[in-house]
Amino acid sequence: MQMPFQLTILGSSSAMPTSKRYPTAQVLNVLGRFFLIDCGEGAQHQIRKNKIGFGRLDHIFISHLHGDHFFGLIGFISTQVLLKRTKDLHIFAHSELQRYTQFQLDFMGMKELGFRLVFHPLNFKKTQVILEDEKLTITSFPLKHRIPCCGFLFREKEKEPNIKKEQLKRYQIPIREIKSIKAGADFVTEKGEIIPNHELIIPPDKPRSFAFCSDTAYHEKIIPAIQGADLLYHEATFTESEKDMAKTTFHSTGKEAALIAQKAKVGKLLIGHFSARYKDPQLVLDEARSIFPETDAVNEDEVYSVTR
Amino acid sequence: MQMPFQLTILGSSSAMPTSKRYPTAQVLNVLGRFFLIDCGEGAQHQIRKNKIGFGRLDHIFISHLHGDHFFGLIGFISTQVLLKRTKDLHIFAHSELQRYTQFQLDFMGMKELGFRLVFHPLNFKKTQVILEDEKLTITSFPLKHRIPCCGFLFREKEKEPNIKKEQLKRYQIPIREIKSIKAGADFVTEKGEIIPNHELIIPPDKPRSFAFCSDTAYHEKIIPAIQGADLLYHEATFTESEKDMAKTTFHSTGKEAALIAQKAKVGKLLIGHFSARYKDPQLVLDEARSIFPETDAVNEDEVYSVTR
Repeated sequence: MQMPFQLTILGSSSAMPTSKRYPTAQVLNVLGRFFLIDCGEGAQHQIRKNKIGFGRLDHIFISHLHGDHFFGLIGFISTQVLLKRTKDLHIFAHSELQRYTQFQLDFMGMKELGFRLVFHPLNFKKTQVILEDEKLTITSFPLKHRIPCCGFLFREKEKEPNIKKEQLKRYQIPIREIKSIKAGADFVTEKGEIIPNHELIIPPDKPRSFAFCSDTAYHEKIIPAIQGADLLYHEATFTESEKDMAKTTFHSTGKEAALIAQKAKVGKLLIGHFSARYKDPQLVLDEARSIFPETDAVNEDEVYSVTR
Repeated sequence: MQMPFQLTILGSSSAMPTSKRYPTAQVLNVLGRFFLIDCGEGAQHQIRKNKIGFGRLDHIFISHLHGDHFFGLIGFISTQVLLKRTKDLHIFAHSELQRYTQFQLDFMGMKELGFRLVFHPLNFKKTQVILEDEKLTITSFPLKHRIPCCGFLFREKEKEPNIKKEQLKRYQIPIREIKSIKAGADFVTEKGEIIPNHELIIPPDKPRSFAFCSDTAYHEKIIPAIQGADLLYHEATFTESEKDMAKTTFHSTGKEAALIAQKAKVGKLLIGHFSARYKDPQLVLDEARSIFPETDAVNEDEVYSVTR
């Protein structure tokens, strides 16, 4: 069975929501665990609409403290209280978000949530692993915006190869040899015959990865962090004709997002965070595709799967 | 031309939004001026979706400070800033909402909005006119909830009758008499003939009214304030089978909303604020209709017009 590694777009507008687009929010499903990335107003509504269970969502990543990326957080938390959540909820964000959220909770008289809110301050100066377990590594890296802003890389861990069972039997490989074969060693039989490693193992699935970059000006320094990602979401607020505006506001154009995708050699580029001035992001998309053809402009409720 | 007096439902859920329902928000269009009543998360999105121009919306009424009734306010305000609003924005709410909003604006570094936010504290002890001009009176009145909560009555002013032009001519009525005739006087001709008032005037249109009651337990004390309203929105969070829950949480059942409508002799009852436990509010609606047949269960994006 193919284990899921899929992204659901909850909101794709820039600061000002339109009639069709919500502010930024996405959910990444990695092997059945759901990660909420940014939490613009309406995120909890979109989560429900997309039938994503709150119970499998324990981690929220907030790229920066512009309202269109976190105004939905207090509503999300309130709903967890109503649902009588007991599991910890981890929030990776600028340290100031804790103060903001605490003020809101105090104001509402919400003293006992019934669960722990665990805030993890982001480092906006350097790339940093922020969460790691046996299956996954999540890294934050600095973007270039008007205020401190991080991108996030979600990457499956490299698995060990499996040994071919029929070869184990055929060459009567002792158990003590398995570890080194999995690590890449050949096997030498009692007769001195060398069996090359590749004949003994089934290579592991390639680890899948997703990189999230919003909001940011064109910034080549992010390339090492996102190098070779299967899927890259990069904001593309403007077209090239609004390049000056993009510069002033520290946002990117469709072309710039595509250049980053090209230089980072990613598998596929998703663009979003479109300015409300565009009724249709086709122009932004055309620009991007002229440089990096494997680009899609995201819409609400779309799902992108990374297959192996 | 019939001047509009129409209500648009932006959000109809109770505290927890569902995949189809947003938290409470409604817009009343009175003669082309738009009044936002409660501002749950997603209200600005719904306003856009319903093609309501922000430029005609200068007044926001927040019934109480439970999150599902005001979490959308900061997003609404932020969008006004992005749209370069210059007109005053009036907010009628608990005085504490100013402190909350100011904290958010300070946190976001939004010092100069470009327009004035004018807060008008509500009185939760007694019925009070909160806004009045030549066409409209808006009154707040206390509801019965866990925290201070107000309902709102929007009522057109009584107009003067018009004098029938042909009668002016026929009886050669002097201009100095017009004021008293409009006030109800008969006219006496030079020959001493008495022309009854009703033959001289076209009666004015009946003033239209809308009353908004959310959230509240069953509370007969509100009846004088909403007496005879053309349209009453009254919350109906539960069915009678959850009456204990309704009591504990200071909410109403469908039956209770209908009893209020019946006793207040309103024209039509709208119910909403349905608990997320009901996939469909039909049971709540059936209960209400058994007592007050002229009841509708509201849904997002529905428009209810009060005609003359």
